[in-house]
Amino acid sequence: MGARQNLTIQLAERPRGDIIPGQTFRQVRLTAPTVNSLSEGQVLVEVLYLSLDPAMRSWINDVRSYLPPVAIGETMRGTVIARVLESRSHSAVAGDLITSFNAGWTELAVLSDGQFDVVSSSSMPANGKLTDLMGVLGITGLTAWIGLKHIGQPKPGETVVVSGAAGATGSVVGQLAKIRGARVVGIAGSDEKVRWLTEELKFDVGLNYKSSDFREKFENATPDYINVFWDNVGGEQLDVALGRAAKNSRFVMCGGISQYNAALHEGPRNITNVVYQRVRMQGFVVFDHIEDYPAARAELAHWLGEGKIKRKETIIKGGLRVAEQTLVGLFRGTNTGKLLLEQKSPSDPGTT
Amino acid sequence: MGARQNLTIQLAERPRGDIIPGQTFRQVRLTAPTVNSLSEGQVLVEVLYLSLDPAMRSWINDVRSYLPPVAIGETMRGTVIARVLESRSHSAVAGDLITSFNAGWTELAVLSDGQFDVVSSSSMPANGKLTDLMGVLGITGLTAWIGLKHIGQPKPGETVVVSGAAGATGSVVGQLAKIRGARVVGIAGSDEKVRWLTEELKFDVGLNYKSSDFREKFENATPDYINVFWDNVGGEQLDVALGRAAKNSRFVMCGGISQYNAALHEGPRNITNVVYQRVRMQGFVVFDHIEDYPAARAELAHWLGEGKIKRKETIIKGGLRVAEQTLVGLFRGTNTGKLLLEQKSPSDPGTT
Repeated sequence: MGARQNLTIQLAERPRGDIIPGQTFRQVRLTAPTVNSLSEGQVLVEVLYLSLDPAMRSWINDVRSYLPPVAIGETMRGTVIARVLESRSHSAVAGDLITSFNAGWTELAVLSDGQFDVVSSSSMPANGKLTDLMGVLGITGLTAWIGLKHIGQPKPGETVVVSGAAGATGSVVGQLAKIRGARVVGIAGSDEKVRWLTEELKFDVGLNYKSSDFREKFENATPDYINVFWDNVGGEQLDVALGRAAKNSRFVMCGGISQYNAALHEGPRNITNVVYQRVRMQGFVVFDHIEDYPAARAELAHWLGEGKIKRKETIIKGGLRVAEQTLVGLFRGTNTGKLLLEQKSPSDPGTT
Repeated sequence: MGARQNLTIQLAERPRGDIIPGQTFRQVRLTAPTVNSLSEGQVLVEVLYLSLDPAMRSWINDVRSYLPPVAIGETMRGTVIARVLESRSHSAVAGDLITSFNAGWTELAVLSDGQFDVVSSSSMPANGKLTDLMGVLGITGLTAWIGLKHIGQPKPGETVVVSGAAGATGSVVGQLAKIRGARVVGIAGSDEKVRWLTEELKFDVGLNYKSSDFREKFENATPDYINVFWDNVGGEQLDVALGRAAKNSRFVMCGGISQYNAALHEGPRNITNVVYQRVRMQGFVVFDHIEDYPAARAELAHWLGEGKIKRKETIIKGGLRVAEQTLVGLFRGTNTGKLLLEQKSPSDPGTT
């Protein structure tokens, strides 16, 4: 009987447009690491969940960005929740659950101290779930909190418009803005998502950008113009929003999911409104604000526990084999709320 | 013999693209105001100089902006230097020189207290000229100072790139940035302007955006990318600059002369770099910062007096009759430095 294999997904080529399953990535079976692979200060983990995020599309482009691009032949990057199988670290024992940005798309990984955080149940609200660590209490929730704190700064009564509002970050942005007393307009890509925004999350208005009268409805929904625009999408929605910018408005530039796959980007024609309306349009990257994480996590856990922040997850089963198709689905809007891939259920016993 | 006439230029129609002399504006001869027209607190003035500015093109568009559009049939708006002919105000006496934003394109005007500022020679450096009140010491100089203070904030050693660098605002921006220790790259539209920037104003690099290898030269001139970009132009230059944005760079959005005349605007395709490089892209309007004027004027007068700020003027003679053609010329890049129209020489005697 041969050594155990470790299914790993590597970047095979850089897509020019859409990710093509079976071509952009390749599935390789490497010899699995074992307890003998560990040095002092390391743990062997098995991945339970992969976080799937729009930013992943940008990580595989060879452009100057906030992280170096994933190299051809490198394991695809991403946040995971994993279980410790073996430990030579003082930070964790076998059986611990951890989150990590250093394992990536693989079944088994060796991580060193500093590359993982042990999950502490004390920081979770009573109604918290393990997977919230990749959603409301993870990078996507932190992104919402930090972008609103540093750039958006919504005041009571202001109009906040969120694009990608039914996604993991956008849904938290809108709810935080409601908590801060703002009037919130959410934009999403289906009537079902829009219903979730208005009926469950209590957004004041929900707009389906695919409807034929989207621009007209957008204008009607912003009679006093936009004080804060949260951009997850770019492209046409950003352009329309610039056309409706209020004086001294803040445009929180978080992402541009409509543009990541586009070979030829389209710029916002209403950019001149940045001058006329004195818009502050500012990009940010959550990783620059690690000092804010504790305060942000504490507040997000509080509102989650109070039921003031609701969340939805779209959890895809099938493990790493379907990771590529699942990521493609993200760009087609298949998910509401946080999109996760379950590689292995936490209730399955650990494998050694 | 009939009453004296007052040549006035009114907006006749809103241009869709370029201003068309003889069509966009109309020249009307109204009955001239006289001393009998004055109420208590008013002055009768004759215009000596008109300031011609890129923003004028935007003032005649019917769009939501920082000022209401000039109405059809209204006197064209603009800053003037004028001489008081008659006064029923305690603020001025006949013979005083004043600046005003409320007279517009007309030979004679009645202004009320609060609508004009009397020129005080004590606030001018020894080498100052009357027309500096529309240039380095006027709105264009104030614009440079205020945009750098609130948004650009150049630090010693940083790379500052200025578009429209040979214009009235851009030339002051670059020189202030040099005074603050930055490395300055100026973009202009002719080799002659570029020579003025590098030889007279001591910019580190000058680039002619009309040269065929502009993009390559731009890259070579910004090996450490751009920390501050001052945008007077928009369009392609803004797009190229976004492609070269440094991490945490500031884009001072002052104007978009390349776009004012365009019926169809083009947006910057590199807008996604706002996220990747955490760019702060912020528009401003000088009139929002009146509280800064005294400090800004004092510093600008100081550097002008020291010879650390140099300026050039392009003064067109011919009076109001050629105002339209002169404004059209501004968009074709005919001027270096501040563009002025001389309606009447200050050395000519006052007319009553």
